[in-house]
Amino acid sequence: MSEIRAKFLEAYSILKSELLNDPAFEFTDDSRQWVERFFFSFLFELDSSCHFGIWMLDYNVPGGKLNRGLSVIDSYKLLKEGKELSEEEIFLASSLGWCIEWLQAYFLVLDDIMDNSVTRRGQPCWFRVPKVGMIAVNDGIMLRNHISRILKNHFKGKTYYVDLLDLFNEVEFQTASGQMIDLITTLEGEKDLSKYSLPLHHRIVQYKTAYYSFYLPVACALLMAGEDLEKHLDVQNILVEMGTYFQVQDDYLDCFGHPDVIGKVGTDIEDFKCSWLVVKALELSTEEQKKFLKENYGKADEECVKKVKELYKVLDLEGVFAEYENNSYQKLIKSIEAHPSKAVQAVLQSFLAKIYKRQK
Amino acid sequence: MSEIRAKFLEAYSILKSELLNDPAFEFTDDSRQWVERFFFSFLFELDSSCHFGIWMLDYNVPGGKLNRGLSVIDSYKLLKEGKELSEEEIFLASSLGWCIEWLQAYFLVLDDIMDNSVTRRGQPCWFRVPKVGMIAVNDGIMLRNHISRILKNHFKGKTYYVDLLDLFNEVEFQTASGQMIDLITTLEGEKDLSKYSLPLHHRIVQYKTAYYSFYLPVACALLMAGEDLEKHLDVQNILVEMGTYFQVQDDYLDCFGHPDVIGKVGTDIEDFKCSWLVVKALELSTEEQKKFLKENYGKADEECVKKVKELYKVLDLEGVFAEYENNSYQKLIKSIEAHPSKAVQAVLQSFLAKIYKRQK
Repeated sequence: MSEIRAKFLEAYSILKSELLNDPAFEFTDDSRQWVERFFFSFLFELDSSCHFGIWMLDYNVPGGKLNRGLSVIDSYKLLKEGKELSEEEIFLASSLGWCIEWLQAYFLVLDDIMDNSVTRRGQPCWFRVPKVGMIAVNDGIMLRNHISRILKNHFKGKTYYVDLLDLFNEVEFQTASGQMIDLITTLEGEKDLSKYSLPLHHRIVQYKTAYYSFYLPVACALLMAGEDLEKHLDVQNILVEMGTYFQVQDDYLDCFGHPDVIGKVGTDIEDFKCSWLVVKALELSTEEQKKFLKENYGKADEECVKKVKELYKVLDLEGVFAEYENNSYQKLIKSIEAHPSKAVQAVLQSFLAKIYKRQK
Repeated sequence: MSEIRAKFLEAYSILKSELLNDPAFEFTDDSRQWVERFFFSFLFELDSSCHFGIWMLDYNVPGGKLNRGLSVIDSYKLLKEGKELSEEEIFLASSLGWCIEWLQAYFLVLDDIMDNSVTRRGQPCWFRVPKVGMIAVNDGIMLRNHISRILKNHFKGKTYYVDLLDLFNEVEFQTASGQMIDLITTLEGEKDLSKYSLPLHHRIVQYKTAYYSFYLPVACALLMAGEDLEKHLDVQNILVEMGTYFQVQDDYLDCFGHPDVIGKVGTDIEDFKCSWLVVKALELSTEEQKKFLKENYGKADEECVKKVKELYKVLDLEGVFAEYENNSYQKLIKSIEAHPSKAVQAVLQSFLAKIYKRQK
């Protein structure tokens, strides 16, 4: 394990323990004892339902690839152009990285409820864990609130504290707005599949994924480095394009990736999702194939899913995707090379290298 | 309608229209047209499922008594000791008031999902509206995010902007923590009713209700008046006590209030809630009555609910409540009179007068 990764994981333990001893929610002696005993017995008896912090956090926060979180440290390092980072700087960058992982956990816990998903990161979705159920809604809220606590604990007093709060608020708003169009588009698409289009897909992806997954880590690093985000709208644009490409990969892998590798069983076809694949398929289909697609898309029936996948093969969506991937890559490289700062170029290149031709 | 109330309602229209034209989530011409057409057709066909802002907001935000929101203006006025407020001041105080109403709407939309409630404010809970379902989770999130947008639109640049963000974050965290113990207590109580106790009830109520309903409006007014919240912990304590008294009334009305008056059908008994009534009943019961209570509490069966209510009558919980109400009132009056500032006293007295012996 790299040194940075080790320090990043160490920061998680520290942040978690601070949250569990937060003075904004203090127990009286009586109730602390009661709650400790109570939660302990809970954990003991049910093995998987201790909501009070420990289990809920470990189950939902650190189980992903941690790319978003780690990239805050990487980006900050590149912005510092090779200068050795102090322990304090590493911890602060790690904390912001974990805030993004917490944000991701919050979205995933709630999205899985809304999408009625089954598995996530190779284990059952949190709301499907016995006894959790709809309490998962509040757990999601708790995860979002932990971000504010972490920011207050470690950044209150910094000149960029208020910018951090604004940034997380804005990005959360954009993500929730993206989720909103996604959900409503799916409702509407169920009535008429032909409403799914490339511009609509792009809009959903931009808001739902790109801002928080790609722009946010870099924006955190820029703020820590003392930069003004309003002067870096070009960086935002490039990262949002990169995030769009990332989500198209995601849509592709949902169908063509291996469940053991991507850590979940893709259900975009069953769920009537406005996926890049179905949008492309609609674009490339004959009238007859369109009719066939409408008959089989969005059905829970295994046979229908199989038929849709067969059509995807007939239309050579694998080839179409490979071409898209190649074009996106070339376009992004060009935009990055046009950026005036070498340090910022390095940050953007590092991001791109991490996702280009990814298999999971 | 009072002039203040009229201005407060006017502010709602302004805030709503700003949110629907938020530049942080801008549509392209294409997608705006698409979305407008689309949502319009949605509204037209289904009459009650336009999530895009208008309907979701009007359904959930302004339908309550608006006491929390209005009290920001009242409190600010009292803190200004009778000085005429400018239009700007009234609008800003109204905006903060609406932020609290938005916060309340966010909690209620999500709580109703978690509690599997049926009605709210005399109409079906939002998630029970046809086609809404689990999309209500994201609608709740959107409501929370609107608060950040309102604060940014109207308070960014004020010296107390960052304190406002911290305040709303802290109060949201406390409320979600209260909801967390409430939910888990209910799970645990189902196994052993005798775990419900007065200190535990107090703890839930303090966090789940008192901070956001009582402390938050006054804290907003104090910030607008240029005060430092850390110097007003005594005010916080009094308001939290008042909020506790308010919630005990709520628990009481859930059983003894009239559904037409309180705007909902109480289900605390069916839902195994750690209500003040059941805690008091456990305290006052003989062993035999306790056994009877355990057999009948938390059952969906109408007969069981009736039996519990009968026991409450036998134990004279109406009388016990009247005594509690009287004692709380006296204690609060004393604490208020001990406060050094006449203006703050007036704020606190006004709050108390609004809830003392309320029927809804």
